[in-house]
Amino acid sequence: MGKANATMSSAAAATAPAAQAPAATPAPTAAHGHGHAAGEQQPPRIHIRAQDGYRWDELPVLVYKEDGGTHFKSITRQLLCPGQGLGCELRYFEIEPGGHSTLEVHQHIHSVIILRGRGQCLVGETVYDLALHDVIYIPTATWHQFRANQGEHLGFLCMVNHDRDRPTRPTEAVEARLRQNPAVDGFIRT
Amino acid sequence: MGKANATMSSAAAATAPAAQAPAATPAPTAAHGHGHAAGEQQPPRIHIRAQDGYRWDELPVLVYKEDGGTHFKSITRQLLCPGQGLGCELRYFEIEPGGHSTLEVHQHIHSVIILRGRGQCLVGETVYDLALHDVIYIPTATWHQFRANQGEHLGFLCMVNHDRDRPTRPTEAVEARLRQNPAVDGFIRT
Repeated sequence: MGKANATMSSAAAATAPAAQAPAATPAPTAAHGHGHAAGEQQPPRIHIRAQDGYRWDELPVLVYKEDGGTHFKSITRQLLCPGQGLGCELRYFEIEPGGHSTLEVHQHIHSVIILRGRGQCLVGETVYDLALHDVIYIPTATWHQFRANQGEHLGFLCMVNHDRDRPTRPTEAVEARLRQNPAVDGFIRT
Repeated sequence: MGKANATMSSAAAATAPAAQAPAATPAPTAAHGHGHAAGEQQPPRIHIRAQDGYRWDELPVLVYKEDGGTHFKSITRQLLCPGQGLGCELRYFEIEPGGHSTLEVHQHIHSVIILRGRGQCLVGETVYDLALHDVIYIPTATWHQFRANQGEHLGFLCMVNHDRDRPTRPTEAVEARLRQNPAVDGFIRT
């Protein structure tokens, strides 16, 4: 379904039906850094219309991590709210069926809400089943990984501080320790 | 649909189907203050399961504003992420068909994403049509009001700083000035 431009004059907005201006869905791009987007310097957009398919008007679909690697699979990122003035960003991550995020740990915190589909996530040593609108809190210094392992896409909003430490992946020794828990061993993908 | 308890043992979580533990939907309550919930002192919940009907397990449905008044109508609030360690909260507001939030202004910023239904909002002097997953940014010191005026519920997530100034409503003189714009005059409810 085509949707209107995000910015309208007040008179038009109050009275006129939305003009048709379908936006193309961009392929994932490496533009915009690790949560520190070039757009951060621009005035924030007041209204970003959602398109069908969990995309937003003129909002790029970004690679999950710029440095690539095989520790994640089939996952994209969109920066919905760059965090101007709030100190927090809101990102939308989407994992295709069979995909997963990186198993990682960091000092910063995540607050997550599921926006699409279902899947599972590891938080610490517990695996949680995730369904639409479930809320997940990832505490500081806690190993975590998301997987779209229920035959569906798994899409979620993630609230995070704009200024944050970089994630760390497990060393072989740490991974061996984590895998001593059978539930963790059966879940994680590295 | 009944959903399982939020906390599961790691082994059970990895292997067992979810136990049935339907939670009652509480009526709106005045518990928890203006974004400064008593729960702020408690350890955050790792997993809060969504129930049907835009409610969450053991999460109270709160009044919109504790001081009451006739400047809002048919709107509730749920505190999904109290903001521990992030400095930001994530709240879910829901307006019944025909209802509206308060027309107000404040120094703090809102980042909003629509989670249910459709409606409209005023930001500054522009009225925006809102549909599922649209993103709205309310800049500092900007008059705004949300309305469920499309015959549907309007539900949205709102990201906001935990520490923030209190909203101000328009004086008669300010309201008269705002109403000089016909689009605003036709939209606002005070």
